[in-house]
Amino acid sequence: MIQTIGIIGLGLIGGSMAIDLKRRGFAEHVLGVESDPVSAAAAEKMGLADEIVDCDQCISRSDLIVVAVPVATAVNLVCHILDSFKESDSTGKIVIDVCSTKEQINLATHYHPCRGQYVSTHPMAGTEYSGPWAAMPNLFDGRACILANAEESSPKALRTVEELYNVLNMRLIYMNASAHDVHTAYVSHISHVTSFALALTVLDKEKDEKHIFDLASGGFSSTVRLAKSNADMWIPILVQNRDNVLQVIDTYLNKMQQFRDAIADLDEDRVRSLIEEANRIKKILR
Amino acid sequence: MIQTIGIIGLGLIGGSMAIDLKRRGFAEHVLGVESDPVSAAAAEKMGLADEIVDCDQCISRSDLIVVAVPVATAVNLVCHILDSFKESDSTGKIVIDVCSTKEQINLATHYHPCRGQYVSTHPMAGTEYSGPWAAMPNLFDGRACILANAEESSPKALRTVEELYNVLNMRLIYMNASAHDVHTAYVSHISHVTSFALALTVLDKEKDEKHIFDLASGGFSSTVRLAKSNADMWIPILVQNRDNVLQVIDTYLNKMQQFRDAIADLDEDRVRSLIEEANRIKKILR
Repeated sequence: MIQTIGIIGLGLIGGSMAIDLKRRGFAEHVLGVESDPVSAAAAEKMGLADEIVDCDQCISRSDLIVVAVPVATAVNLVCHILDSFKESDSTGKIVIDVCSTKEQINLATHYHPCRGQYVSTHPMAGTEYSGPWAAMPNLFDGRACILANAEESSPKALRTVEELYNVLNMRLIYMNASAHDVHTAYVSHISHVTSFALALTVLDKEKDEKHIFDLASGGFSSTVRLAKSNADMWIPILVQNRDNVLQVIDTYLNKMQQFRDAIADLDEDRVRSLIEEANRIKKILR
Repeated sequence: MIQTIGIIGLGLIGGSMAIDLKRRGFAEHVLGVESDPVSAAAAEKMGLADEIVDCDQCISRSDLIVVAVPVATAVNLVCHILDSFKESDSTGKIVIDVCSTKEQINLATHYHPCRGQYVSTHPMAGTEYSGPWAAMPNLFDGRACILANAEESSPKALRTVEELYNVLNMRLIYMNASAHDVHTAYVSHISHVTSFALALTVLDKEKDEKHIFDLASGGFSSTVRLAKSNADMWIPILVQNRDNVLQVIDTYLNKMQQFRDAIADLDEDRVRSLIEEANRIKKILR
């Protein structure tokens, strides 16, 4: 239980955390920061936070600060917050981020004298929507949350943040930051890239959008769903995780080419062995 | 309202049609044919049809026959059924297929003297599961059903089949067979291929399947869902629709390469314009 929690960035993730941390009693008082005026007005109207404040107020008044902004901004912001902890001699305060790439932010904070007060987290939940209007209760229940380089956080800060994610009903997984970035490239980032490419393909081939609307089956809709995802969030992820993402794209291009060749050759045995190998995903994802 | 309907192939599509056509009163009596013994026993136990019979019995006793088997088998079977209509002088009987490719089956039947008694259909509904155990009520409600080359069917046969799909609550779309194969390649077949390739990629890169299980977010699961699809169904679709599928795969490979290059060059403007172009799919799919 925290007296005052400050959430910087009241979008899908920050807004959803604000809802559940308040109503499940983890925080007494929720301060929210939102730099975009339209989003700020919406967040206020939706009551996502008890107060909408500016960034400095949020940092000085909160016991625990959640940085829930795109990862390019988050690196500097977490460092800035740790600096302010040092200046104001606030040894009891904690800052966490919720970004989808972890290596760069961990490198940037590694030698900071207040590093122990920072906990590096990635709650793996979300939808293809963004903004305060995408925030919802119960978003995190049952999903995985990665704590990266947890041994660099102080035991007390770590315990508090573990408690926070317990309140959100998340499964905690501990991993070092560079392993995190490899595995999320393989399992999460690539599926966004394939969805974007699928949407681009269909929009390119089907000049008449009515056909897409008419013929989109449930299967197509679910495969292309992530292509609705927000550029501001995804550009820094793909750029920061460039090397891992390129590696997995190259493997993907290679698999796609194998499929293409097998179909071009009308080689049914080869198509079958590719499909049956792909079917193994069934056993892993139920 | 039909006296006796015969459904050849009691899998996901055939089994689901059996359920709703019976309980919604379109057919008095449902005969089912299932060549796989395990599936036949399951279909019987599940009560998908009133009687499980052999193919010849089904053809001779049914007023309307639904061919719901993979498309390679369906082409010959529909011709065989039309032959039997001719031999037995059964001018009132109707046969339909429900296959995902339409050009080959329409070419094969085009000059058949009983062509008018055949209606070529593609109900665009389904899940990634197959077999009688995947059959479910309400599968077709609100989805699109394509009637291909409807002008080659007799007005009476067409009216009956339109009525059948009305009972299943489907939106009817009329299209010629070759346009059908082009558009379904663009909107449906490609998303299966991209899902198969995604599953192959992740299984290749993540040697430790526990990571896939742990880290699979909702986004990954929905993008890879179609990779669970059945080889027996998909091989003939990809082979029969080879030329259209190859064309759309090539466009896809090209879009993917553009994405790869923009990320490799750390060209954020180019990544942004690709993502924002892809985001247009939002407006089409709500």
